Amino acid sequence: MTGKLRFGVLGAGRIGKIHIENLVNRIPGVQVVALADVAAQEREAVAARFGIGKTFADYREMLALPEVDAVAICGPTNLHYQMIVDAAARGKQIFCEKPIDLSLEKVQAANQEVARRGVRMLVGFNRRFDPNFLKVREIVAGGKVGKPHFLRITSRDPAPPPEAYIRASGGIFLDMTIHDFDMARYLMGSEVSEVYTRAAVLVDPVFEKAGDWDTAVVTLTFENGAFGSIDNSRKAVYGYDQRVEMFGSGGMVTVANNTPDAHILADHAGIHTALPLNFFLERYAESYLREMRAFVDAVVDGTPVPVGGEDGFKAAAIALAAARSARENRPVKLSEIHQGVAAECPVS
Amino acid sequence: MTGKLRFGVLGAGRIGKIHIENLVNRIPGVQVVALADVAAQEREAVAARFGIGKTFADYREMLALPEVDAVAICGPTNLHYQMIVDAAARGKQIFCEKPIDLSLEKVQAANQEVARRGVRMLVGFNRRFDPNFLKVREIVAGGKVGKPHFLRITSRDPAPPPEAYIRASGGIFLDMTIHDFDMARYLMGSEVSEVYTRAAVLVDPVFEKAGDWDTAVVTLTFENGAFGSIDNSRKAVYGYDQRVEMFGSGGMVTVANNTPDAHILADHAGIHTALPLNFFLERYAESYLREMRAFVDAVVDGTPVPVGGEDGFKAAAIALAAARSARENRPVKLSEIHQGVAAECPVS
Amino acid sequence: MTGKLRFGVLGAGRIGKIHIENLVNRIPGVQVVALADVAAQEREAVAARFGIGKTFADYREMLALPEVDAVAICGPTNLHYQMIVDAAARGKQIFCEKPIDLSLEKVQAANQEVARRGVRMLVGFNRRFDPNFLKVREIVAGGKVGKPHFLRITSRDPAPPPEAYIRASGGIFLDMTIHDFDMARYLMGSEVSEVYTRAAVLVDPVFEKAGDWDTAVVTLTFENGAFGSIDNSRKAVYGYDQRVEMFGSGGMVTVANNTPDAHILADHAGIHTALPLNFFLERYAESYLREMRAFVDAVVDGTPVPVGGEDGFKAAAIALAAARSARENRPVKLSEIHQGVAAECPVS
Amino acid sequence: MTGKLRFGVLGAGRIGKIHIENLVNRIPGVQVVALADVAAQEREAVAARFGIGKTFADYREMLALPEVDAVAICGPTNLHYQMIVDAAARGKQIFCEKPIDLSLEKVQAANQEVARRGVRMLVGFNRRFDPNFLKVREIVAGGKVGKPHFLRITSRDPAPPPEAYIRASGGIFLDMTIHDFDMARYLMGSEVSEVYTRAAVLVDPVFEKAGDWDTAVVTLTFENGAFGSIDNSRKAVYGYDQRVEMFGSGGMVTVANNTPDAHILADHAGIHTALPLNFFLERYAESYLREMRAFVDAVVDGTPVPVGGEDGFKAAAIALAAARSARENRPVKLSEIHQGVAAECPVS
Repeated sequence: MTGKLRFGVLGAGRIGKIHIENLVNRIPGVQVVALADVAAQEREAVAARFGIGKTFADYREMLALPEVDAVAICGPTNLHYQMIVDAAARGKQIFCEKPIDLSLEKVQAANQEVARRGVRMLVGFNRRFDPNFLKVREIVAGGKVGKPHFLRITSRDPAPPPEAYIRASGGIFLDMTIHDFDMARYLMGSEVSEVYTRAAVLVDPVFEKAGDWDTAVVTLTFENGAFGSIDNSRKAVYGYDQRVEMFGSGGMVTVANNTPDAHILADHAGIHTALPLNFFLERYAESYLREMRAFVDAVVDGTPVPVGGEDGFKAAAIALAAARSARENRPVKLSEIHQGVAAECPVS
Repeated sequence: MTGKLRFGVLGAGRIGKIHIENLVNRIPGVQVVALADVAAQEREAVAARFGIGKTFADYREMLALPEVDAVAICGPTNLHYQMIVDAAARGKQIFCEKPIDLSLEKVQAANQEVARRGVRMLVGFNRRFDPNFLKVREIVAGGKVGKPHFLRITSRDPAPPPEAYIRASGGIFLDMTIHDFDMARYLMGSEVSEVYTRAAVLVDPVFEKAGDWDTAVVTLTFENGAFGSIDNSRKAVYGYDQRVEMFGSGGMVTVANNTPDAHILADHAGIHTALPLNFFLERYAESYLREMRAFVDAVVDGTPVPVGGEDGFKAAAIALAAARSARENRPVKLSEIHQGVAAECPVS
Repeated sequence: MTGKLRFGVLGAGRIGKIHIENLVNRIPGVQVVALADVAAQEREAVAARFGIGKTFADYREMLALPEVDAVAICGPTNLHYQMIVDAAARGKQIFCEKPIDLSLEKVQAANQEVARRGVRMLVGFNRRFDPNFLKVREIVAGGKVGKPHFLRITSRDPAPPPEAYIRASGGIFLDMTIHDFDMARYLMGSEVSEVYTRAAVLVDPVFEKAGDWDTAVVTLTFENGAFGSIDNSRKAVYGYDQRVEMFGSGGMVTVANNTPDAHILADHAGIHTALPLNFFLERYAESYLREMRAFVDAVVDGTPVPVGGEDGFKAAAIALAAARSARENRPVKLSEIHQGVAAECPVS
Repeated sequence: MTGKLRFGVLGAGRIGKIHIENLVNRIPGVQVVALADVAAQEREAVAARFGIGKTFADYREMLALPEVDAVAICGPTNLHYQMIVDAAARGKQIFCEKPIDLSLEKVQAANQEVARRGVRMLVGFNRRFDPNFLKVREIVAGGKVGKPHFLRITSRDPAPPPEAYIRASGGIFLDMTIHDFDMARYLMGSEVSEVYTRAAVLVDPVFEKAGDWDTAVVTLTFENGAFGSIDNSRKAVYGYDQRVEMFGSGGMVTVANNTPDAHILADHAGIHTALPLNFFLERYAESYLREMRAFVDAVVDGTPVPVGGEDGFKAAAIALAAARSARENRPVKLSEIHQGVAAECPVS
């Protein structure tokens, strides 16, 4: 490949802006040449701020540009599938935010289209690129905790999203826990075979109205015989709580939360330190950058992406199993979830 | 009550010695006047070391002594029931190590006998008296974490017990996790209504031979709507890992492990601190002392004991539910366990 | 001011590149239009990488460009004075790396020139912009530790600089401790009135050959009656150690070191965490960015710079007092240092 | 030696009671047979509580008892000298609280008398027996921080003592810092050769009225070429602050404060942990016990005491040098202090 890798971005919202800023300011060898979003005002403001030359209301027009080498799909989840299919049809390299889709069949179909068209697709499980979790994975993979026995993930948001977001989110497991499911697979280096979930509405009745939950605890059984436990809450008043702990035959590794500073204040009332970085934009700023660099590197070098459609499929399948388990209060095997899908559109 | 409270101790083993040492050296207003144990050599050695005047091979002879006001039952679990019944029949105040019995029916029966005889019985869930867990309970009860949503208990032993111990232990849930079940009830201030357990043998095949497990993860549902998760291992190579975390609408409280010292060493390889205090004798030394003081205070003041037979019953019931859940891989309601028992011998 | 603030950078070395990268990639509203450095290869490589249009071997030619609004002086210390004087004469706004000069007289003269020409000069005590130290200052200024009594600064480098650097550095106090002297003034909010220093060569004999020290402990007396203590080493094998602690009538605030990640590994040998970020480029990356933003904001808004020539003068004076104290093993009053200078070129 | 080691205790005050309780309840093989104190009420109350058979208003009568093998001198400092001389004359083994005396000549004379009489004397620098500081010493002595370069001691009391205590204390250096001077010698494994001190009254004017200081910072130069820095305050509102840090060519070791529990509370306002154990009785409970055990072991085994009169002498000499340095604002060599003393009563 000669010259810069040219990006077209689909979506000028919150997450789109993060990726644009990283592409424009922090990643050498790339260029953002086009931006598509139906919201004209936001689209033009973002384009102006980052010097993006071409803008489109209809993303399909942008995909028709021959100079677009790669796309970053940052639109609403319900458009991801079609955007992937259209981009793949145009031969574009694809970065897609998670989840690929709320339906496992469409995830599968999108992956098959990507494979058929011979393009790369990195799915935005950005936390895999966080320095803390990378370190945990490095320690686990290096055998420093021996054979894994138990994985704990604590993942709590600082505050619930707006009601409209909740209603479109696919529910806590497909929206929030899906990150933890991906993290579980990544850290354990083994697939999940069974899920048991308990969920409730303890934070805000709005979740009940939306047919969703705000609090959950999930037990995972892995194919390697180890167990996992994930606990979620949509509201931790002390901020964004993102911790993992892997326990094994040779030891344990855990990560503390990141804080804006490392101060320790001692007064008559106690010893006080800073709250965690408050939400994902701050907490995972570095991981968004590293994830996009990884995508660019894979495209430029022609190497496989470190997290792909298969990963998107598997995390979604666990999420669906978790939701079913919560509804039916029984352990659900992943094979039960995979079955229906695999029948018509088998994973390659 | 005038004069000192006079104790007879049943059992001169490891835990018996702890209680004797606390009674003799650290608790004012008490006296250990007699010791019973079938093992003559150990019994006489302990009696000599602590200046205990009378010793018996048969504990019933000791119970016949009118000068014995209170007993500390520290014998093997399978004798607890009979010892309680016999001590209660003699009107002795009873401190009994946990568990009361491996059978819920006998726990029930023992409690009824204690009630009928009008004596007090403190059941040795010593961890309730640990400064760390007391502090957590104080914070939770004081509303500092708001309404509880989720409780996490991590409880890992440094190394498995001998095979003989395992075979007589009643299994991981009645032997080890029972402490965590009691802690869960204590910290949550609410009863457990349902249990789901995943268990495996990952540490040592000896557990499989004994029909037991060495690794477990338990999901608890509480009557107040909150959830809990307990993870156990019989072997943490870094030592005795005893942590809890309570998350609620107003915040979170957690406790770190206790260490023998507070040193921090920085060298070219990293920052290093001390491992946890290695096992329960060191870790819970303070709690054993406080628990016995609480028993003595309750007896002397004629006040209720802070943890009694009812607590022993309930923790055992959860343990039995957990074991059934692990065997059958399904959530088990506590009502299912209570039912059979309650039919014949209802809890007062 | 209309349009972008246009920078000319003097020096394409290590620190010059940091400032250029921040100006080009992370600070909106600025442009780097020119770069001067005698080293042709480095200069051209940097210019190419960051798209800087004009390059010069002689910085004076660059200063002659009318389109250069502001300069960043990142050359060797012995050129700072002349560069400041020349830039001020051209009416350029000045960012200058510390120290201004090794001679107090020349620092004074440079400051006077800046004042006379009516330009702004921010002196690069970047640590003032570090989130940790900003937080400490905020806490101290907010009265949360009451009236300050004692300040401790621990400042240790991971490894000694090359011999050539040492010989040109002005010695440990003007090169390394000067940051701590500025930090002391900043955190205490009071001037240093007296210094006592003990210094030695314990790390590497190369310091002795250069007439310098590698280890020092400094006692500061402040005008507000508080004391301070600084300890320095040129070699901490565990990495860059940058901590401060302010103790006062109402409490204490301290900051821990920053680490690349927040992992905690427990194995049979102990509990292990990450070493500090290894040196100033990593540790203070954020502070370099914030410092330059502060300079740009001051220039654009026409407000005073947060750290100026006066601060450069005072930190240098303390450094000279410290060196004299170390040589003569006696407390040295700042008035003793200021005297000679003040006679000829009084601070405004 | 056959039978128990029989103690006579001189002084039934706060520190006397600590030692009596340890001797009576926690140290096997010893007996407290007699107690001397001029304050009748306290003396008799303590004797009754701990079952001490004989009590005396005049300690000399107690020393006349042949059954007293060893004495614990816990009276006021101004009586220590005479008590040591009298006890040594009777051939008693001596445990003596620090300081031996406020005059170096009398310290010297007491030591000589002890040596002449052939008895053992352990001087109560209890902190040497604290698990934290023992660990630091073990790490330093084991070479894990390489060659020591710098020692930092932070030692702050939670609140000033009463005025009467201050007036009799000998001043901050002989009363408070003396512990730190002993700790410095112990941890460094090298003697102090020079002291520079800055001191002030920042906490309470009562110290000024008593001709004393409440805040001090001391620079130590050791014979091995390393430096040390001690900072003291009579009032840390957050509690008893007792930390040390040893930095060397191979790393650093430090110790955190001890806390009553290990809880961590996170709420909307921050992360909060427990304050340090509040004062020396709680903080150093373990060290008082270990120190007395070490004394008993040395006497019983006929081995040297781990901290003796020589240590008492040296710590006092540093304290006197520190006071002189503070008064005269100049570095003071230890040789200057030793000189006058050594002339008449040389240290053996």
